[in-house]
Amino acid sequence: MFDKLKEECGIFGIYSMDNNEALAFPTAVGLSTLQHRGEESCGIAINDGGIIVNHKDVGLVNSVFKPHILEQMPTGKMSIGHVRYSTTGDPKKENAQPMVIRHAKGNLAVVHNGNLTNALELREELQKNGAIFNSTSDTEVICYIIARERLKTHSIEDAIVNAMKYIKGAYSLLVMTSQKLIAVRDPNGFRPLCMGKLNGKDIVFSSESCAINIVGGDFERDIKPGELVVVTNNEVKSIDARNNAKETLCIFEYIYFARPDSTINGLNVHKFREEAGKYLSIQAPVDADIVAGVPDSGLDAALGYSKHSKIPYDIAFVKSKYIGRTFIQSTQKTRKAQVALKLNPIKTTVEGKKIVLVDDSIVRGNTLRRLIKTLKKAGAKEVHLRIAAPPFIDVCYFGTDIDSKENLIACQKSIEEIREEMGADSLEYLDLENVKKIVAEYGIKDFCAGCFTGKYPIEVPKEIKKDKFEKIF
Amino acid sequence: MFDKLKEECGIFGIYSMDNNEALAFPTAVGLSTLQHRGEESCGIAINDGGIIVNHKDVGLVNSVFKPHILEQMPTGKMSIGHVRYSTTGDPKKENAQPMVIRHAKGNLAVVHNGNLTNALELREELQKNGAIFNSTSDTEVICYIIARERLKTHSIEDAIVNAMKYIKGAYSLLVMTSQKLIAVRDPNGFRPLCMGKLNGKDIVFSSESCAINIVGGDFERDIKPGELVVVTNNEVKSIDARNNAKETLCIFEYIYFARPDSTINGLNVHKFREEAGKYLSIQAPVDADIVAGVPDSGLDAALGYSKHSKIPYDIAFVKSKYIGRTFIQSTQKTRKAQVALKLNPIKTTVEGKKIVLVDDSIVRGNTLRRLIKTLKKAGAKEVHLRIAAPPFIDVCYFGTDIDSKENLIACQKSIEEIREEMGADSLEYLDLENVKKIVAEYGIKDFCAGCFTGKYPIEVPKEIKKDKFEKIF
Amino acid sequence: MFDKLKEECGIFGIYSMDNNEALAFPTAVGLSTLQHRGEESCGIAINDGGIIVNHKDVGLVNSVFKPHILEQMPTGKMSIGHVRYSTTGDPKKENAQPMVIRHAKGNLAVVHNGNLTNALELREELQKNGAIFNSTSDTEVICYIIARERLKTHSIEDAIVNAMKYIKGAYSLLVMTSQKLIAVRDPNGFRPLCMGKLNGKDIVFSSESCAINIVGGDFERDIKPGELVVVTNNEVKSIDARNNAKETLCIFEYIYFARPDSTINGLNVHKFREEAGKYLSIQAPVDADIVAGVPDSGLDAALGYSKHSKIPYDIAFVKSKYIGRTFIQSTQKTRKAQVALKLNPIKTTVEGKKIVLVDDSIVRGNTLRRLIKTLKKAGAKEVHLRIAAPPFIDVCYFGTDIDSKENLIACQKSIEEIREEMGADSLEYLDLENVKKIVAEYGIKDFCAGCFTGKYPIEVPKEIKKDKFEKIF
Amino acid sequence: MFDKLKEECGIFGIYSMDNNEALAFPTAVGLSTLQHRGEESCGIAINDGGIIVNHKDVGLVNSVFKPHILEQMPTGKMSIGHVRYSTTGDPKKENAQPMVIRHAKGNLAVVHNGNLTNALELREELQKNGAIFNSTSDTEVICYIIARERLKTHSIEDAIVNAMKYIKGAYSLLVMTSQKLIAVRDPNGFRPLCMGKLNGKDIVFSSESCAINIVGGDFERDIKPGELVVVTNNEVKSIDARNNAKETLCIFEYIYFARPDSTINGLNVHKFREEAGKYLSIQAPVDADIVAGVPDSGLDAALGYSKHSKIPYDIAFVKSKYIGRTFIQSTQKTRKAQVALKLNPIKTTVEGKKIVLVDDSIVRGNTLRRLIKTLKKAGAKEVHLRIAAPPFIDVCYFGTDIDSKENLIACQKSIEEIREEMGADSLEYLDLENVKKIVAEYGIKDFCAGCFTGKYPIEVPKEIKKDKFEKIF
Repeated sequence: MFDKLKEECGIFGIYSMDNNEALAFPTAVGLSTLQHRGEESCGIAINDGGIIVNHKDVGLVNSVFKPHILEQMPTGKMSIGHVRYSTTGDPKKENAQPMVIRHAKGNLAVVHNGNLTNALELREELQKNGAIFNSTSDTEVICYIIARERLKTHSIEDAIVNAMKYIKGAYSLLVMTSQKLIAVRDPNGFRPLCMGKLNGKDIVFSSESCAINIVGGDFERDIKPGELVVVTNNEVKSIDARNNAKETLCIFEYIYFARPDSTINGLNVHKFREEAGKYLSIQAPVDADIVAGVPDSGLDAALGYSKHSKIPYDIAFVKSKYIGRTFIQSTQKTRKAQVALKLNPIKTTVEGKKIVLVDDSIVRGNTLRRLIKTLKKAGAKEVHLRIAAPPFIDVCYFGTDIDSKENLIACQKSIEEIREEMGADSLEYLDLENVKKIVAEYGIKDFCAGCFTGKYPIEVPKEIKKDKFEKIF
Repeated sequence: MFDKLKEECGIFGIYSMDNNEALAFPTAVGLSTLQHRGEESCGIAINDGGIIVNHKDVGLVNSVFKPHILEQMPTGKMSIGHVRYSTTGDPKKENAQPMVIRHAKGNLAVVHNGNLTNALELREELQKNGAIFNSTSDTEVICYIIARERLKTHSIEDAIVNAMKYIKGAYSLLVMTSQKLIAVRDPNGFRPLCMGKLNGKDIVFSSESCAINIVGGDFERDIKPGELVVVTNNEVKSIDARNNAKETLCIFEYIYFARPDSTINGLNVHKFREEAGKYLSIQAPVDADIVAGVPDSGLDAALGYSKHSKIPYDIAFVKSKYIGRTFIQSTQKTRKAQVALKLNPIKTTVEGKKIVLVDDSIVRGNTLRRLIKTLKKAGAKEVHLRIAAPPFIDVCYFGTDIDSKENLIACQKSIEEIREEMGADSLEYLDLENVKKIVAEYGIKDFCAGCFTGKYPIEVPKEIKKDKFEKIF
Repeated sequence: MFDKLKEECGIFGIYSMDNNEALAFPTAVGLSTLQHRGEESCGIAINDGGIIVNHKDVGLVNSVFKPHILEQMPTGKMSIGHVRYSTTGDPKKENAQPMVIRHAKGNLAVVHNGNLTNALELREELQKNGAIFNSTSDTEVICYIIARERLKTHSIEDAIVNAMKYIKGAYSLLVMTSQKLIAVRDPNGFRPLCMGKLNGKDIVFSSESCAINIVGGDFERDIKPGELVVVTNNEVKSIDARNNAKETLCIFEYIYFARPDSTINGLNVHKFREEAGKYLSIQAPVDADIVAGVPDSGLDAALGYSKHSKIPYDIAFVKSKYIGRTFIQSTQKTRKAQVALKLNPIKTTVEGKKIVLVDDSIVRGNTLRRLIKTLKKAGAKEVHLRIAAPPFIDVCYFGTDIDSKENLIACQKSIEEIREEMGADSLEYLDLENVKKIVAEYGIKDFCAGCFTGKYPIEVPKEIKKDKFEKIF
Repeated sequence: MFDKLKEECGIFGIYSMDNNEALAFPTAVGLSTLQHRGEESCGIAINDGGIIVNHKDVGLVNSVFKPHILEQMPTGKMSIGHVRYSTTGDPKKENAQPMVIRHAKGNLAVVHNGNLTNALELREELQKNGAIFNSTSDTEVICYIIARERLKTHSIEDAIVNAMKYIKGAYSLLVMTSQKLIAVRDPNGFRPLCMGKLNGKDIVFSSESCAINIVGGDFERDIKPGELVVVTNNEVKSIDARNNAKETLCIFEYIYFARPDSTINGLNVHKFREEAGKYLSIQAPVDADIVAGVPDSGLDAALGYSKHSKIPYDIAFVKSKYIGRTFIQSTQKTRKAQVALKLNPIKTTVEGKKIVLVDDSIVRGNTLRRLIKTLKKAGAKEVHLRIAAPPFIDVCYFGTDIDSKENLIACQKSIEEIREEMGADSLEYLDLENVKKIVAEYGIKDFCAGCFTGKYPIEVPKEIKKDKFEKIF
């Protein structure tokens, strides 16, 4: 619909050195800061003296956790929370997280960002042994495997380490038991996960560092690939379960998913995008009057392009922050107005100008095509489209919503055809080689760029099987 | 709070001989008619060409299934629905039904009325084999056992028959698969379950016959204890899995739970209560001016008492149908008014009169005490309390909310002490022998009266273990 | 739709001898008790130190005044509240009351039960002098006239006395200013209004006495026709503005509108209905097995019929208290079920019986026709319909919703034709002469029976003009 | 609370050349685009064949006009809509607009942006002649005066022209009758109002041109000060009622209120702000590493400052778009986190830098002080605060919420004291002379800058009288 790739999830958790803290409040603020990683449903589980109290629902954090709900939630020693997207037709309420389950040795609350590559195989195997599933989410599979391994081990952390031998793919997890809060990142570190301190002592885990800042904490470090950070008895320990896997963060976290004020693996996201703009200006220069970004995701790269090319940066669009999807869809029902856009060009800025228009990526291109049309209508003389990432040519198996090549314009058309369809006067995508140069400067040697190359760092399924088990509402 | 025992659940389902019927509507009306069996949460699952679509939430049927929700629900060939209470502190949303699960051989939607006596043992055994639980409800245990047995059998009905060897206690179930709708009643027939026809051909299952009437159908028969009624391919077949168990319906279904217009095991509920009133007038006659019932549950017995004793029946109270719990509770917050009651005496009826006041039962007696006080304030000369059931002296293991003797006034005090506390001029309870006589006339030889005798038709746990696994909201 | 006449409104107010009382709570309970007089919208205005805080909305009292709203409302010294119906197509939110207005000498909060006969004339006259109207309600007209008269007088009570010379028709009012709470009843006393004491000292006004009882107060007396009761400075005074008008209470308050536990002009409503049943049994005896009332409005008269005729009283129907209009309407959308009814016959009671079926009145008769059909289907041998009121033959100008003869079956058909359409074996209406006898025993000499006779105690408009000024939602 | 001045209102309307158009949809999109002018309540009135249907409530446009509401609204020929703020303690629901009233000659729906300077005098005068008021809004006063004048004139437009002799102050109005849609701007043109075409023929009126663009229309021209544009019978005519008044648009529309993509009186708002930044860099240069704006209102001026000073523009803050007021307030309730801010600095951008921080204005400065603190914490070496407007030194009488000098920091402290309180290394405000230069380039000779000078273009009241008539909820 909105022509952007969707991250599937964001996770956040707090372990307080004190007891009986009102953790629902900062957890909700943290989740709200991560809301760009998942707008569909959210939830928070509080560990109140060993009892896990869970509240989750479909909706944004500020709608599911209205003040009177936050006030009703118990105080506690630990909390975990989750925001998520889901792909079309997927169950909704049932798949909201945290998932809280009971197993032979106790209770478990789990939040998960990522996607398993062998979830269906694991599910079928478990079902053959009598398992039943209440949802279609990978998280329930993870819970089952942990519970199964827990029967053979002496601690939940050992059970998780064992489970990591079976579950394949991308997973950043927070696992809460009656006594422990455990952060886990898969051996490849596909999805980000970091930790920090609040009030100088309490432990905070977050998908992105920005949420740690917003709740008033201090970022400390990323969780390492294959690492478990276990917090219990007010102490923190680290377990290494990496097994020599290669670190391959999803490069799209830098390109689009993460917030510009987050820093992942030592590289700030705004900085990455500015650099992407710079390299784009070197790789694809153009004679123009102004450089403008598509708000908000193209602004950082546009600034980088401008700085390096010396073509003045300007503000070409104003974003209507109050107009939501529903409204835009509802306008389609009437002859009296065209389908509205969230972006309106500033005529004064663009009239008579040659414009470099920078965006982060193109999925189907519907919105970009219409934006360029409005720029031309507002008097732009030329629009040179610059994309601060390579073209999408393959699906993602690690937790985003590109599950089919059908919707990827770059799988259907040549770059020249895309340019024509967009109505742009020229079009260039950033080379993958340039992406590599940017991250190399920050010591990052490898990453997952499967969606740009069709080559994945770990084995992937031959086909993406759709689960026909559907429950709606 | 409201001084009445609570039934835990009601269930309702339809199998249509046609496809693509708007089953959500009549299912919701059926559930609304059964709402007295459970006011806390409700849900409906529709089988739409093998896909099970489920909607459930906390709230009354007419609030969870508002017209726009009913219209969004798909048409289908089968539906099942559920209304439920839950005991204090219990999980709410998670325990709402239908429960829809996926197992090795397909999907299963289940609704359940009753309570297992060995749920904890079964759960522990399953957990030792790696099972995880998403809820604390017995229904998830039942699903697990059915799924486990399904691995060893050739059909879902065989799996259910096998499962019935393991699950003990009270259960009336509706089980929906992609092709089948199956009604199951435990071998003792603790909870009612009956079937009827809609439009002369479609099959309807319901906890009580009144819901079949209200949707415009015709009652056909009770499901027999230990019987499975399987509807598939537009045909109905019956399987007997009773194994010589003794039929022992919960006698409290007649006394209070069921609606007066329902007929269970051949005996109409209104008729039972009228007879109870008649026997009460024989057993405990009194010289009085009028007989009045406590609305609504004491009215039928009051009429029976009046008819036989020739003391005129009259209407002593008006019920405020718009005042809910919340209101009554909110009045406690202000000095300006006493705690309101839903019942207001008609002064003209009661002033200067000797009154026989009939109610169905006494749990703690708080409301009755205050009612008698208002009668006296309105000028009643004498109030003779007559209870159309024996005193509660023990807990229930089969699906109601008496889980502790603490709240039972008859466990704490003698009848004379209760009379005094109630402020009544005399007090009598109906003898169990008289209850036996009433049902015997309708060929009913045995029933469960454990709450009146402490003797239960099947083995019960030594103690009621409370599950500490708690999730709220 | 539901085949019953609708009262337009109920009003309730409290004047506390203390300051800063949480009056919202008891006012809401009082309104909830009067909810049968108006289910569409409601509101409460609190006088908090001279500042009038008003909250009103469409919905039942327990939905508009949820606990968190009640808690947000300020404490105060006085409160007034209102429940209302509105006729189809009428403005809703705008017409909700209390109406709070500002005029030259201060503020005024007003609630009104009744209907003016000269509202349109007054409105047109006011408009010709520059008035504008925000609503179509008579209440705004009343406010204008009071405000206009206030300019010429020294007190609000004098202004009201003056205003009463201009406004014609039915009006029971509560008027709240910064210092005063004033109850007003029109000179004919068309609509009831009474007062009582709460906690032995605070003053309560209510449309019906039952609401005074339910909030824990004691009924004191009716407001007299043409009387103003002014409460200010913790003192009560009475002003007589009757001007020799004849008292003519709407007789339908006894027949249907008021609650059986209310007493109006010294006659208890339940008592009236029982007497109506008695006279009906004398006037229209029948050889039958049982007498049953249509719940809830026919039950009292049925009891009276039974007592006098010695034909046993029985319970023929169970009412589904959870099924609302929306549900019943939604069942019309599906082939799978007939349109549901709120009433289900008890087969055991009616099978093979000759039944006297008593109801309070017939408007269009749609529900009665279907009820009699279900009785016959359940096996009733004969159904003799007895109506505890005369037939409706004309419209009402005084605050109910009969605004056209079209919907009155008795204007279209003979009694024999109605009997046939109802499917009854016989049909009789109570004679007006018998109604007169009943009230005469209680010293009531005159009343308004215009809907039964076409003769009205005061002048009425030649036609009921519909206001075309419409605002919805 | 949020340290920004609030505009009181935005208005929008459509006159369709066709009948029965679904005008609710584009009107809602237009209002949503104007939502920055008022977030508290909103409403739309549709003229459906002469019947005016009105829906309004407290809440954002996308919450009050959810899709099912928009679909229920009738089609029509004309529509008007409104968004509004209200000042603290003010009535809410009652003051929502459109106001729909009935007067002697018909109905009137009115929306209003602005504030009258003689509303209280007019109200008192009207009340002395018997008027009553349902609200405290100036709009009701305007309606009264128009209705009064309508009695003496032959058309509504004549009545409005007459009324304009009595009402003083700022008012941009849309007036809808059964046949006409009329746009009115006060003779000084304090508030903006413009018109455009939709689909090449339908007439659109809007507070700002951006809303015309977003619904797909084309901006045509500003309504002139003192002009009435009357649309009726599918024709447009203009009436001049200016009476030689001087045009004095509120300069703060350019500085902060209006959207950057709007053009008012020929000057684009983004352009104005960029120029303000340029002049600020000339007036108050500083040796720095980067220029950054406070999102979103300081961005345009920051860009202007950067362009002219050649100091690089950068992005210093990321805005949390999902975190609302409620959340920020709720964080105050817990020890575990500081009060959250919506803006988080990008450490990489600011660390070790001398920063020019540009914002549009300072009211109390609370947020700015905390922002500068976070910049310093993130490593900023110096922060030079530049304000793209003069200091506020007096109240506003023309439709914004500065009604007292108490909350204006520049009335309490010297610029040096403010600098110190803000924690800035230097602080400069744009000179009013520079503001004059900017607008003079676009032919704008005069404007209202009363809040910066204490000198107002028309007479103002000696004191702002607070109306004590309060109704909440």
